[in-house]
Amino acid sequence: MADSKPAVDGEPMDMEALLQSVFGIVIDEAIQKGTSASEKVCEWKEPEELKQLLDLELQSQGESQEQILERCRAVIRYSVKTGHPRFFNQLFSGLDPHALAGRIITESLNTSQYTYEIAPVFVLMEEEVLKKLRALVGWSSGDGVFCPGGSVSNMYAMNLARYQRYPDCKQRGLRALPPLALFTSKECHYSINKGAAFLGLGTDSVRVVKADERGKMIPEDLERQIFQAEAEGSVPFLVSATSGTTVLGAFDPLDAIADVCQRHGLWFHVDAAWGGSVLLSQMHRHLLDGIQRADSVAWNPHKLLAAGLQCSALLLRDTSNLLKRCHGSQASYLFQQDKFYDVALDTGDKVVQCGRRVDCLKLWLMWKAQGGQGLEQRIDQAFALARYLVEEIKKREGFELVMEPEFVNVCFWFVPPSLRGKQERPDYTKRLAQVAPVLKERMVKEGSMMIGYQPHGTRANFFRMVVANPALTHADIDFLLDELERLGQDL
Amino acid sequence: MADSKPAVDGEPMDMEALLQSVFGIVIDEAIQKGTSASEKVCEWKEPEELKQLLDLELQSQGESQEQILERCRAVIRYSVKTGHPRFFNQLFSGLDPHALAGRIITESLNTSQYTYEIAPVFVLMEEEVLKKLRALVGWSSGDGVFCPGGSVSNMYAMNLARYQRYPDCKQRGLRALPPLALFTSKECHYSINKGAAFLGLGTDSVRVVKADERGKMIPEDLERQIFQAEAEGSVPFLVSATSGTTVLGAFDPLDAIADVCQRHGLWFHVDAAWGGSVLLSQMHRHLLDGIQRADSVAWNPHKLLAAGLQCSALLLRDTSNLLKRCHGSQASYLFQQDKFYDVALDTGDKVVQCGRRVDCLKLWLMWKAQGGQGLEQRIDQAFALARYLVEEIKKREGFELVMEPEFVNVCFWFVPPSLRGKQERPDYTKRLAQVAPVLKERMVKEGSMMIGYQPHGTRANFFRMVVANPALTHADIDFLLDELERLGQDL
Repeated sequence: MADSKPAVDGEPMDMEALLQSVFGIVIDEAIQKGTSASEKVCEWKEPEELKQLLDLELQSQGESQEQILERCRAVIRYSVKTGHPRFFNQLFSGLDPHALAGRIITESLNTSQYTYEIAPVFVLMEEEVLKKLRALVGWSSGDGVFCPGGSVSNMYAMNLARYQRYPDCKQRGLRALPPLALFTSKECHYSINKGAAFLGLGTDSVRVVKADERGKMIPEDLERQIFQAEAEGSVPFLVSATSGTTVLGAFDPLDAIADVCQRHGLWFHVDAAWGGSVLLSQMHRHLLDGIQRADSVAWNPHKLLAAGLQCSALLLRDTSNLLKRCHGSQASYLFQQDKFYDVALDTGDKVVQCGRRVDCLKLWLMWKAQGGQGLEQRIDQAFALARYLVEEIKKREGFELVMEPEFVNVCFWFVPPSLRGKQERPDYTKRLAQVAPVLKERMVKEGSMMIGYQPHGTRANFFRMVVANPALTHADIDFLLDELERLGQDL
Repeated sequence: MADSKPAVDGEPMDMEALLQSVFGIVIDEAIQKGTSASEKVCEWKEPEELKQLLDLELQSQGESQEQILERCRAVIRYSVKTGHPRFFNQLFSGLDPHALAGRIITESLNTSQYTYEIAPVFVLMEEEVLKKLRALVGWSSGDGVFCPGGSVSNMYAMNLARYQRYPDCKQRGLRALPPLALFTSKECHYSINKGAAFLGLGTDSVRVVKADERGKMIPEDLERQIFQAEAEGSVPFLVSATSGTTVLGAFDPLDAIADVCQRHGLWFHVDAAWGGSVLLSQMHRHLLDGIQRADSVAWNPHKLLAAGLQCSALLLRDTSNLLKRCHGSQASYLFQQDKFYDVALDTGDKVVQCGRRVDCLKLWLMWKAQGGQGLEQRIDQAFALARYLVEEIKKREGFELVMEPEFVNVCFWFVPPSLRGKQERPDYTKRLAQVAPVLKERMVKEGSMMIGYQPHGTRANFFRMVVANPALTHADIDFLLDELERLGQDL
């Protein structure tokens, strides 16, 4: 039954040799060069050229080991280095070696997180990690699960909230229910809208609550909206507050929102995908005061904790097995009840997926290595570096803060020489809006750094610096500002 | 800003040393021992003992490198070896080194598959891989996306089908629609029910079509059910056929089902999560004849192709940008329209997630290495080995086929000595049902092999052998039968 090619099927020695070579390439190209400030953060190619370079087409004939290793090198070469100290583009960055070690072990074990039978270590480990995250929220009991991303965690919360209110929905569907309404601020993540559409509620069911100029939900407007929804014949069932909004990094006032939820008997969800990790910091966790009053919390350690994509926990205060009742379907081929161990350990029926990746090991291993203290230090360091950036921005001509940040999102404009002091000109805003896209193109094509920009409400395109990579130093922050000046000096 | 511990933050040399050590452990423990027939497939521990052994609790203090490496060893030691040649427990198994190489590179690059900006290689690669899979379905154009598992792929298909019929649903929700009905056979995967509940349709909207005794959907009953749903005031919108059912490995008659869908104007989805890979085999792809008439296909290369969890493609015949219209929400912080490249390459708005893992590289790299021919050979080999098992079962006393398989699921009873020839006894079925759980407990506690069992309809617990690991040989099949005899000789 052996393969006819000189290939690796069933040949452990070849398998080992290949993987050793690939490990070497990963160490050299992705780890060393990928995190070195003297290397490019990206090697820009136009799509058509990149297609040629990668020779993507899948053929009938296999290729030699040498060709395959060359392909591995090319894939890494032309990929963006998200662990690079000048990658500021997303809410995730950096490269934690312990988390990466956990990810590599996860991949080598290749199992699914549904039964104790085939994932004994990870069933127990997931529960322990979730318990720790819940403790940081302030809960001594509860439930939870790792989801494929924060958007899915938010959808889970929405589904659990409606099931708790109307268990009939699972069987009879939304048509058997009154029209439902949920509430979130205009600064919420777009997954709330996507979730409402996917879950059949429709985006009209999302009532948009006003936010103040810092981006925080206004609890008084929330209550106004609840009354209005009721007056229009809808049944409010859920409020989704945000701890760490995507652009401004705002924290909704959770205690005041919890009061409103309590008065109206609403499920209180906190989307802390971005800001949840602040709970590790004694100094800054006050930003999430009141989170212990939530019914559910979405928290992505793959963002500020750099655990690696994806690591997204949905945490629940519930102790009534709501997850399993809401999502379970008791598949008899997988969740046999006549097993020789406690089948409560078969947690796969808590989720709407079947096979589910192991997302706990990377976080667990990193936590074991750094300790809660080490992780706390990282959070505090990120806040301190964000503060340093703010002060530097204030010192430099041509840089203008959008607002004082309260988190590690630092939003600012770079005003190029030709626009300085011209705020009164009628085309100022329009011209300022064109600056960020030009600078972005220049930095990406040079490969010197990557930072995101966006318009926001009536504000023209501004940069959103995200201080998340634990390897960042003052020098990297200085570089960011110097580089924007250099790239924009002729504008 | 340096960490106070002698840790790795910002220290490339330490990072490299740690990862080199972890690579070594992975090679020794997970790759070599993990795929060696002379090692155990699992090291069973009772949950309480395993908790002690793993020392799972997360502390404040970090640990030394030596402790961390010992933890890596323990995690691997007590995990099930799904790449082991005696792991027959799930629809995935085996360890393809090229796929694993692709997974390790994916983890080291740690990016998200939403924009060309931060995933240039993978945006182009995903499209190329999907194109190849679509070509095997029989489509020269279309769309698609990798999803976090087949269950989510199936949900996507359901959401797309209802959106295509009722675009209003996205905004106004299901309450604005007539009651909907979808159709699938009683042998379908449980994700169809989970999806109906999650999407707000309710499980009542799933009409269960009869299957024949081999587990294939009966098209005449499908049409009967459609008429009945209409008579009851529901609007049929989707049929989900299955290519490769979970337990019996049955293939629904796609052409006949396509005829029914065509007559009634219904979206035709094929859940080929398990059976889709058979399309690679010239010899066996007739099992999926008619699949080219589908509107959508779910296909998990992480199963029979051993690409690694998770690799789950949703393929669409649609060329009208339905995915993006149905799921998109145009987040301005991520999908800026004033970028310097063609923003059609920012495919992230096609999905309901935000961040999305890179699932294409592992499959692409494996395909490049093996070629389509090498993969085809694996499929053919799996069929041949399944046939060998069937013939051996027929030769041996005490083994009884549930039915002649048409795929690589081989379902059979082991009848222990005390029950042979006792079929007429009134408690025969009840006693036979107790055999598989006992044998399962014995094999797991010895760590000699793992194979799944389940009841099915009126049939008592039987074993489901899955021939999927490309490294399997006749000797492994012989071992399976010998081992069941050995474990069950006293029963």
